[in-house]
Amino acid sequence: MSITVVGSVALDTIETPFGKITDGLGGSGTHFSVSAGFFTQVNLVGVVGDDFPKEHMAMLKSRRIGLDGLQIAKGKTFRWVGKYDFDLNNAQTLETHLNVFETFKPELPAAYRHPSVLFLANIDPDLQRHVIEQAGKPGFIALDTMNLWINIKKESLAKTIKLVNLVTINEGEARLFAGTPNLVKAAKDIQALGPKTVVIKQGEYGALLFHGDHVFRAPAMPLEQVFDPTGAGDSFAGGLIGYLDRKGQFDDFETLKTGVVCGSVMASFNVEKFSCDRLLEVSVADVQNRFNSFEGLSRFETIVL
Amino acid sequence: MSITVVGSVALDTIETPFGKITDGLGGSGTHFSVSAGFFTQVNLVGVVGDDFPKEHMAMLKSRRIGLDGLQIAKGKTFRWVGKYDFDLNNAQTLETHLNVFETFKPELPAAYRHPSVLFLANIDPDLQRHVIEQAGKPGFIALDTMNLWINIKKESLAKTIKLVNLVTINEGEARLFAGTPNLVKAAKDIQALGPKTVVIKQGEYGALLFHGDHVFRAPAMPLEQVFDPTGAGDSFAGGLIGYLDRKGQFDDFETLKTGVVCGSVMASFNVEKFSCDRLLEVSVADVQNRFNSFEGLSRFETIVL
Repeated sequence: MSITVVGSVALDTIETPFGKITDGLGGSGTHFSVSAGFFTQVNLVGVVGDDFPKEHMAMLKSRRIGLDGLQIAKGKTFRWVGKYDFDLNNAQTLETHLNVFETFKPELPAAYRHPSVLFLANIDPDLQRHVIEQAGKPGFIALDTMNLWINIKKESLAKTIKLVNLVTINEGEARLFAGTPNLVKAAKDIQALGPKTVVIKQGEYGALLFHGDHVFRAPAMPLEQVFDPTGAGDSFAGGLIGYLDRKGQFDDFETLKTGVVCGSVMASFNVEKFSCDRLLEVSVADVQNRFNSFEGLSRFETIVL
Repeated sequence: MSITVVGSVALDTIETPFGKITDGLGGSGTHFSVSAGFFTQVNLVGVVGDDFPKEHMAMLKSRRIGLDGLQIAKGKTFRWVGKYDFDLNNAQTLETHLNVFETFKPELPAAYRHPSVLFLANIDPDLQRHVIEQAGKPGFIALDTMNLWINIKKESLAKTIKLVNLVTINEGEARLFAGTPNLVKAAKDIQALGPKTVVIKQGEYGALLFHGDHVFRAPAMPLEQVFDPTGAGDSFAGGLIGYLDRKGQFDDFETLKTGVVCGSVMASFNVEKFSCDRLLEVSVADVQNRFNSFEGLSRFETIVL
């Protein structure tokens, strides 16, 4: 029972209407790992520069996240500078400095091969396939992506999607990839490439799970204070994939439904503070309590008309 | 047990990517009445011109919708001409001909006064108050509105909102009215004026119910074919308010939750064809079946972490 995840580890400088953070710990691999770590063992494959703060390394170690696959390269850590306006829905990228990430070639340590689950967080789909080739035959492969790869490497992305069991993608990206505004059709298009399971992330609206012919809609928590949405999608995937790995079930609709709710729970914490700060504060009991409040949020009585 | 509703009765000419209809039966009062009629007795107050097709009148009568408050005025019926692009989210108004609606002054027949429920569909908030004044003391008053009144008659709208128990409003309008992108805050702002219950309609994402301090999120059905969204919000309100009136309970959170799901069910039918055509085809058993599939769509198992 363990997840090998490959993704970015970054230092984010972010401004929202509620505050500003400089060089906060971010990146898709980081947000995923911290979230999934509530449910299962996670091994993180990525790269940082030699300027990467030791306290972040210590924090990740303290969460029992495997770091043998985290390369420390000569140079600077990947940095992203972004800004959100009041609606918090669209990140405006001000600066991207790939730094050591530019020449990153993920290498899986021997101990990380043949994981029960391989999660390919948002990176170049060519690199995602390079990781699949090294991973032996994982029991289950999931991937996330972003609009950039749909725009500039769609064929490569489609090739990678053919190799995986589950895709998480946000709704705008699903529409862009499939060329249709209709999400049911978009999910079917992605499923037709191979993955039986497609999870469409809808931000403050929740998520849609398509598994074979089954559909489930997970709610998102209506929050009065959304502080910083950065990493919400990665925390979501961490809760979902972490829960599946903990249960050891990847093809059961009920387990997938619960997993998607776990994803929504973790994302709802993630957005309450900058970086992973909120997830670092909460306990397993807090996660359980919020899961319970998701139930309250979406349960309704049967009627007979 | 009956609802008196005041709203528009219109002839809509609509073009979507999937087809075109000329002078189809529309209007907020119509969509509401046909939907609510599945649950309870509805009495419709509105106005049409002397060109209003007899078959529409016959159809409404056949649904046992009370028409004693439907004035037939000299002149032409209110007409709206609109268009939707592929995403179907935003109606583009091409033409509005108020015609007899321009000088409409709603008058409640004696039999429609003191209803158990008064529903003020989207019309000028001054007229909504004029109706409240005539209605005696209804057990429960609900209203819907639109961005136009927020933009040009916000003070009048706020005055009307103070007099009602429940507000249905779409998310863009809630944000506009409250001046905040955060829907939890927007709902609280509206509640602070008086109504204990605020229902925020989110189109393809479902709806949020705020009742006192309680929150519920109703799913929307992911549909592969959305044909024409016109009237979805009014059908939604019809299902919600119709169910509440049928149960005779207006302040019970469980009943309100179920009512919001009934609203989503009716809206999901409404968008499958032009005008009220789909709702005129479906049976009570079809409504029950779709309600059941909403349950399947949103039920998930409890976990213990």
